[in-house]
Amino acid sequence: MTMSDTVEAGEAVALLERTRSAVNPQLRTTLESLPGSIRRVAMYHFGWEHADGTPAAGAAGKAIRPALVLAAARALGGDSRQAVRAAAAVELAHNFTLLHDDVIDEDSTRRHRPTAWTVFGTPDAIITGDALLALALRLLAEDRHPASAAAAERLAACVIELCAGQQADCALEERAPHEVSLDECLATATAKTGALLGCACALGALYAGGGEEEAAAMDAFGREAGLAFQLIDDLIGIWGDPARTGKPAGADLAAHKKSLPVVAALTSGTPAGADLAELYRGPMTPAAVRLAAEAVDRAGGRDWAQLQAADRMARAVHELARAVPDLAAAGDLLALAEFVTRRTR
Amino acid sequence: MTMSDTVEAGEAVALLERTRSAVNPQLRTTLESLPGSIRRVAMYHFGWEHADGTPAAGAAGKAIRPALVLAAARALGGDSRQAVRAAAAVELAHNFTLLHDDVIDEDSTRRHRPTAWTVFGTPDAIITGDALLALALRLLAEDRHPASAAAAERLAACVIELCAGQQADCALEERAPHEVSLDECLATATAKTGALLGCACALGALYAGGGEEEAAAMDAFGREAGLAFQLIDDLIGIWGDPARTGKPAGADLAAHKKSLPVVAALTSGTPAGADLAELYRGPMTPAAVRLAAEAVDRAGGRDWAQLQAADRMARAVHELARAVPDLAAAGDLLALAEFVTRRTR
Repeated sequence: MTMSDTVEAGEAVALLERTRSAVNPQLRTTLESLPGSIRRVAMYHFGWEHADGTPAAGAAGKAIRPALVLAAARALGGDSRQAVRAAAAVELAHNFTLLHDDVIDEDSTRRHRPTAWTVFGTPDAIITGDALLALALRLLAEDRHPASAAAAERLAACVIELCAGQQADCALEERAPHEVSLDECLATATAKTGALLGCACALGALYAGGGEEEAAAMDAFGREAGLAFQLIDDLIGIWGDPARTGKPAGADLAAHKKSLPVVAALTSGTPAGADLAELYRGPMTPAAVRLAAEAVDRAGGRDWAQLQAADRMARAVHELARAVPDLAAAGDLLALAEFVTRRTR
Repeated sequence: MTMSDTVEAGEAVALLERTRSAVNPQLRTTLESLPGSIRRVAMYHFGWEHADGTPAAGAAGKAIRPALVLAAARALGGDSRQAVRAAAAVELAHNFTLLHDDVIDEDSTRRHRPTAWTVFGTPDAIITGDALLALALRLLAEDRHPASAAAAERLAACVIELCAGQQADCALEERAPHEVSLDECLATATAKTGALLGCACALGALYAGGGEEEAAAMDAFGREAGLAFQLIDDLIGIWGDPARTGKPAGADLAAHKKSLPVVAALTSGTPAGADLAELYRGPMTPAAVRLAAEAVDRAGGRDWAQLQAADRMARAVHELARAVPDLAAAGDLLALAEFVTRRTR
């Protein structure tokens, strides 16, 4: 990291901290309104309780999506305090997807803790995810802010896109590597990751009194930044430092994942791409993981992903400028976008 | 059935038919807006397509909940055509619960067809359920009717109650028979079945321009009728005619289910109740099922359930009279309530 990166990261970290202070009380009150056994699963998932119901010091998410809602509202001259419910709604919707995705993908760890379904069973994890989705949309329906109906419409539409993204992701992972195109993977990442970041920014715009045009531009900003985030995340899944990621080196390769750099390599038409395809047909031993990482690199998958990420960030800034003519007002949004695309390198 | 029962049932059947004509076009258009692979699972689940995507003649639900929305709107002098979106939203929410409940309960048959998860896999069934819930709340958020926000608030709160009901039901089924109280079972049935029937009626009231008081009374009517329905359904699960129910005789007993008449018998403090508890500790062979049915009867579980059902229907009518002073206007609602509590005897 350069010195300026560190300053920006420090800014974003402070912003996320302030967001959690502003949104967590609303989130906790909302979760506490849930019926007993569902509340318990939810409080565990959010990191606020241990599995036995005793208080935990909080391993909850970084609150990137709520921070985007509040920063987008401020960027358009709104009062971000009016958008706290909307920010909480987006975070609830995000956590609904995490609970269900962990069941579907059979992931056993989330935020360094056992996933809810491994602790409480699959039925309780499904039911709690359902309840969080209903809670998210209830928060908006109860909100008397003039933007709440348009926000609910956008969030519900976004959830359907998230569902489509998760469905497409499952389908892609089941297909043979040579049957997967890069465009499909990009579309899937947009639906699965970009859509909710875009929706968060759009809700901020609506809560600042913005019209459909501002909301659409903010949505596009969040989507492009989200895709940059996913590309960086995929690079980390191959070359990330285990000490920083908490995952073994090349975790995505070991799991035969068709991440974006992998698919870029597989579809490159290069000899290295063919080597990678051959490796992916066999078991991914630590030696195979090392060879596969080299093959992705030689096939151009690494460079492609880095260039794509930079390109997406440039597009994000371009979209942002459409919504916020004076980019100085959008400093927090830019800091957040920079933060999510650099976080663990 | 007496002659008058037959007339009433005929009335309700015609009403349900008219409801399907009014609501199905909206439902189909809404489902067709779903992304490809989710739409396919949804169309299958609704009985409008076969598993291979070819059109099917429709084994969709009876549309009782949408019929309640429209009938409640009419009973309060509203124009039921204005409430078609709300009726479709309630039906989507109902089908969200069916998709997830079938996954959670591992049920393999629904409406005489293989359940969606057995055909498309658990991930697709979970994701499609999620999408139907989001779609239900999107329909209301998009609706420009003045009641739509209050309706969304009620529907989202109801979904949380449905989740709690399903969660409680799973928890009850895991406990030993002697650890289950009748009050808990009644509370679970209210949350799992009564809540959505109540919500359907309340939404109709809101769409007719009714206030919180009318909506609450309509909700109470639907809940009481829903509980009567569940009690009758539980009686059918023990003594229903296999030729009419499509299930083997005593299906609930064979599955060790803690249905309401069973728990009434188990908690009766009678020798027959003790006999039933003893039978439930072992495997439920056809002979054991016959003996258990007799034990429920001797322990008073059958009479209790019949009296409770009649009592709940009386309470339902009482609540209805609070919302609709001239009960003549509520003929359709009464016909529907009678229909659901008699349907397959």
